[in-house]
Amino acid sequence: MYGAAHGIKGVLDDKLYIMDEEDPYELELLKNTPSSELGSARYKIADPDKDDTDYKRILEIFRKYDVRYFFYNGGNDSMDTCEKISRYMKKEGYECRVMGVPKTIDNDLWGTDHCPGFGSAAKYIATSCMEVSKDARVYDTGMISVIEIMGRHAGWLAGSAALASYSGSGPDLVYLPEVPFDYEKFCAEVVEMYKKQGKVLIAVSEGIHDAEGKFISEYSSNLAQEKDAFGHAQLGGLAVQLAEELKKRTGSKVRGIELSLLQRCGAHLASETDVNEAVLAGKTAVEAAVSGETGKMVAFERETVDGKYVCRTKLIPLESVANFEKKVPLEWITPEGNNVTQGFIDYALPLIQGEPERVYENSLPRYARLKKVLAK
Amino acid sequence: MYGAAHGIKGVLDDKLYIMDEEDPYELELLKNTPSSELGSARYKIADPDKDDTDYKRILEIFRKYDVRYFFYNGGNDSMDTCEKISRYMKKEGYECRVMGVPKTIDNDLWGTDHCPGFGSAAKYIATSCMEVSKDARVYDTGMISVIEIMGRHAGWLAGSAALASYSGSGPDLVYLPEVPFDYEKFCAEVVEMYKKQGKVLIAVSEGIHDAEGKFISEYSSNLAQEKDAFGHAQLGGLAVQLAEELKKRTGSKVRGIELSLLQRCGAHLASETDVNEAVLAGKTAVEAAVSGETGKMVAFERETVDGKYVCRTKLIPLESVANFEKKVPLEWITPEGNNVTQGFIDYALPLIQGEPERVYENSLPRYARLKKVLAK
Repeated sequence: MYGAAHGIKGVLDDKLYIMDEEDPYELELLKNTPSSELGSARYKIADPDKDDTDYKRILEIFRKYDVRYFFYNGGNDSMDTCEKISRYMKKEGYECRVMGVPKTIDNDLWGTDHCPGFGSAAKYIATSCMEVSKDARVYDTGMISVIEIMGRHAGWLAGSAALASYSGSGPDLVYLPEVPFDYEKFCAEVVEMYKKQGKVLIAVSEGIHDAEGKFISEYSSNLAQEKDAFGHAQLGGLAVQLAEELKKRTGSKVRGIELSLLQRCGAHLASETDVNEAVLAGKTAVEAAVSGETGKMVAFERETVDGKYVCRTKLIPLESVANFEKKVPLEWITPEGNNVTQGFIDYALPLIQGEPERVYENSLPRYARLKKVLAK
Repeated sequence: MYGAAHGIKGVLDDKLYIMDEEDPYELELLKNTPSSELGSARYKIADPDKDDTDYKRILEIFRKYDVRYFFYNGGNDSMDTCEKISRYMKKEGYECRVMGVPKTIDNDLWGTDHCPGFGSAAKYIATSCMEVSKDARVYDTGMISVIEIMGRHAGWLAGSAALASYSGSGPDLVYLPEVPFDYEKFCAEVVEMYKKQGKVLIAVSEGIHDAEGKFISEYSSNLAQEKDAFGHAQLGGLAVQLAEELKKRTGSKVRGIELSLLQRCGAHLASETDVNEAVLAGKTAVEAAVSGETGKMVAFERETVDGKYVCRTKLIPLESVANFEKKVPLEWITPEGNNVTQGFIDYALPLIQGEPERVYENSLPRYARLKKVLAK
């Protein structure tokens, strides 16, 4: 069993690690370890019908190590890569069973109820929003805070901020990229709320855009021209930009907070449900491949048994997944476009449940330490 | 027993909550709850010798509710307020025992080994830096990441990022405000490291400043003039500014991350040692006041018993604490000024130990829900 360094790049570069050399305890600790211990890649593979250079090389490496089962783990781009490789191997008549294993905090893979990674990121976002909500309301003065959350095209992560409000301490307003963002309407909503309650906490997706499709984060070029009382330019990403605009309109103290990479790697707040389902996805892929399946992705189906959430797996053709983005259904966004509905809460809440067994060393996380022995 | 809303502001405004009305279970949950449930204030009280308006009012309220014990919780400014009130009550001959209870994540109170709050914030910072370190090194391309950490004048929090490196996954370079920040030397250090290893993770205190005392964050005004290829101004706080400069010098991908409020309210990563010591500080203050002490602050002393960290309490005069800032000793900063030494690690590591009992509801934190019944 080999693990490729940095995804498909590791295959192309003949950098495969011998996984059997690893201590099983350390492999188990991967559940406790954020990011990808074998590395990730941002490599867009060509269409095999147009340029098959990479594919020839992949086949060469597969032959070298007699790779007959290929599992590829990731989001939309990875499923696209996986599908192309599957197609090419079939065309070349090289017997290799190819399976996609879903994994993306963006939760935007088509054909699956949800994706491994999302539940843990949602739990991180909800918990952090609960905490910030407490902090941002602590003074006896007015305060407007804006939290910026990942998700360029789909609002699953931003919507998760509403789990904090559901728990009694979260944002007053939540804006998703699924509906156009009206800058003036937004400001009016916040100003009105500020006048009423003095404190406003807002969660926005990084991908909010206007009706013409222009990202609000790109409005920055105008704001950057403006200077404060000390002659400093107003600086910041989307959260800071919106906060500065709201400061101008209300005179309130403001704070812009970007959850940045933290929401993507916050393994210390992983959901047990999510971790277990990630393992389930991999296990299902292996079992399916062994029993003869190929060219499929493992997908999740949600069932309710005795009123309880149950996650089932199924297989769907890779070509039905690749390059479609699953967005938050419009019926889960309020008519005002400034929050999610109970439907979204009911969807997301089961996915963040449970505390996985956490392994510590000096009260800090103990991560997997792999040997990473290269195959020759 | 009364709790003042928003600190001394609640006394001035006659907004005292009857704490005996609260459910003991909910009060216990305060250990699980970030921020300050009774509210905080940024109110600078006058020197009683110059303007005693506020003090007359405080005395009036103390008389109204027959307040004979006064406990004030916070950092430098709070201890200053506490000391002034103590002095005034003594001068007026009003019998009231006044005690300061330390609490500040900044850890900069004079006369105490450390402050409640710091251990938990340090643990949050260390854990987050471990995670970001994994994420920021995941691609096979170059990457420079800068993490900005609180602490305008003292580097206790920024130094805590080194606990992550000590645990095998943390920043390569750590810059504290205790030593002048040489911008060119910094850039040269990072560029050299980038050439060698391709990935560099840097932790900086928000308070880093040059030899003339000018904050590096104020260098922004120049950077803001510059525009990227799309005509957008380069925006961001200190972390983003530094990252953008390093991008210019290396061509690397960069990421600026500000831990912002998150590090101040990250109760889900609280240190058990810290939570217990916070309770100990309050308990010690009450016992001391009951036994006749006044005008003192509870302080911590560290002892090593059988090779193990033990925290003892003592009382120190409030006037010896107020308005001195305790900084990281220079011998705990490397000669190059770009990291902390083992001395710092040995100091900080015991303070982050242990996982407190955490209370969840739907797998999200369950915070204290107080009734906040106002006294009349």
